[in-house]
Amino acid sequence: MSAEASPALVSPEQLEAELRDIGARLYHSRHPFHALLHAGKLNRGQVQAWALNRFEYQRCIPLKDAAILARMDDPALRRIWRQRIIDHDGSAEGEGGIARWLHLTDALGLDRELVSSGRALLPGTRFAVHAYIHFVRDRSLLEAIASSLTELFAPTIISERVTGMLRHYDFVSRESLAYFEHRLTEAPRDSDFALDYVKRHADTAEKQELVRAALRFKCSVLWSQLDALHFAYVEPGVAWPDAFVPADAHAAAAA
Amino acid sequence: MSAEASPALVSPEQLEAELRDIGARLYHSRHPFHALLHAGKLNRGQVQAWALNRFEYQRCIPLKDAAILARMDDPALRRIWRQRIIDHDGSAEGEGGIARWLHLTDALGLDRELVSSGRALLPGTRFAVHAYIHFVRDRSLLEAIASSLTELFAPTIISERVTGMLRHYDFVSRESLAYFEHRLTEAPRDSDFALDYVKRHADTAEKQELVRAALRFKCSVLWSQLDALHFAYVEPGVAWPDAFVPADAHAAAAA
Repeated sequence: MSAEASPALVSPEQLEAELRDIGARLYHSRHPFHALLHAGKLNRGQVQAWALNRFEYQRCIPLKDAAILARMDDPALRRIWRQRIIDHDGSAEGEGGIARWLHLTDALGLDRELVSSGRALLPGTRFAVHAYIHFVRDRSLLEAIASSLTELFAPTIISERVTGMLRHYDFVSRESLAYFEHRLTEAPRDSDFALDYVKRHADTAEKQELVRAALRFKCSVLWSQLDALHFAYVEPGVAWPDAFVPADAHAAAAA
Repeated sequence: MSAEASPALVSPEQLEAELRDIGARLYHSRHPFHALLHAGKLNRGQVQAWALNRFEYQRCIPLKDAAILARMDDPALRRIWRQRIIDHDGSAEGEGGIARWLHLTDALGLDRELVSSGRALLPGTRFAVHAYIHFVRDRSLLEAIASSLTELFAPTIISERVTGMLRHYDFVSRESLAYFEHRLTEAPRDSDFALDYVKRHADTAEKQELVRAALRFKCSVLWSQLDALHFAYVEPGVAWPDAFVPADAHAAAAA
């Protein structure tokens, strides 16, 4: 990443506009699997496969945030960032984002032990999620914070998802989607902070380019999880032999 | 990985038989993408995408082996293991396995700078390959060595690949496949050593189970790279927006 390869220094506002453009181009809202999920084109087994695999991402979010927290020298910064861990872990057993995701997998009829164990995951899920953890450990704090900026684009996809899933799937209830309702308020708070941090601290052209690359990387983490799901459970529908097999596996309704 | 969850201690010969069973079940020779590749069902652009992405794996093999070498206390062991690095890096510019892979990508008409830069990779390729490097750094030396045992199954797939590609693709020459000819002698030598090491050092039921898990993990590293290729370049053929776009992109001949 040589300095001469970096674009020129831009204003913080211009940087924000470029980051939003990256999301418009690379966020997983543009992935074919999400179109199928939101449009009701998946069967129950395929939605189960999505929820089971996505649990690995949910499970690792506090590990990712703890790795970032462990690199923050400033108590004021840590006080803000720790809220992400509290949101996901809750204050007691059965509370928080991870527990809410397990309510969704329960509601979809998945065995909780199977989901929690991770043993039926697709390899592509595991590799993408763990790449994210390694990234925030190995890169600069600025890049680690920038990689969280996909939250900027979350509210739109969450609204589409909740609306689409409730309309199309009789096996999905509003209550089972409680995770997403919480994220609708948490994500903007988190991304507002991270965006402000990045705009203030990316004060050289090279740092700005690292920020853009961090967001592209994070988009690719989300995107490639859907590649793996689509390959294994939609077309050609050949799952890694040790991966989850839906009990009611059959062709998608209209895919 | 609790001791009571592990199967009972088995003989070294039984362990070997179980490892060969894992390969028969999970090695990527069973992946749909390989069936298409070997049967001549891919077009030139799809073969280019395979070679370009697979280069990331080739590029990282010496990094993986150096990470293992760096954890070997025994000079006798290091003298044997270092040969793997020599095989891939060669003794001069233009020699060795990495250079031979670049001869293949050259022969396929790929720009060498594009291939070497890695900027057109699929995210799934990168995440799987780097998971392998992290694995050999983080796990025990026994697990790191066991993860190399996919070489046991390489000669068969290489023979199928060379025969199939030469028969079906007029853009592939025997000379461009020189990488594989070398691997036909290197892989058995390497896997004989690793298998013997594993059979001698996995002397508890728990270590044997770690060895089996390491081989399953490595199979999943190879498998998920093909998931990503198939999704992006075969069906539905939607590549990550920053990934390689074949110049002659069109539908597969008969897929």
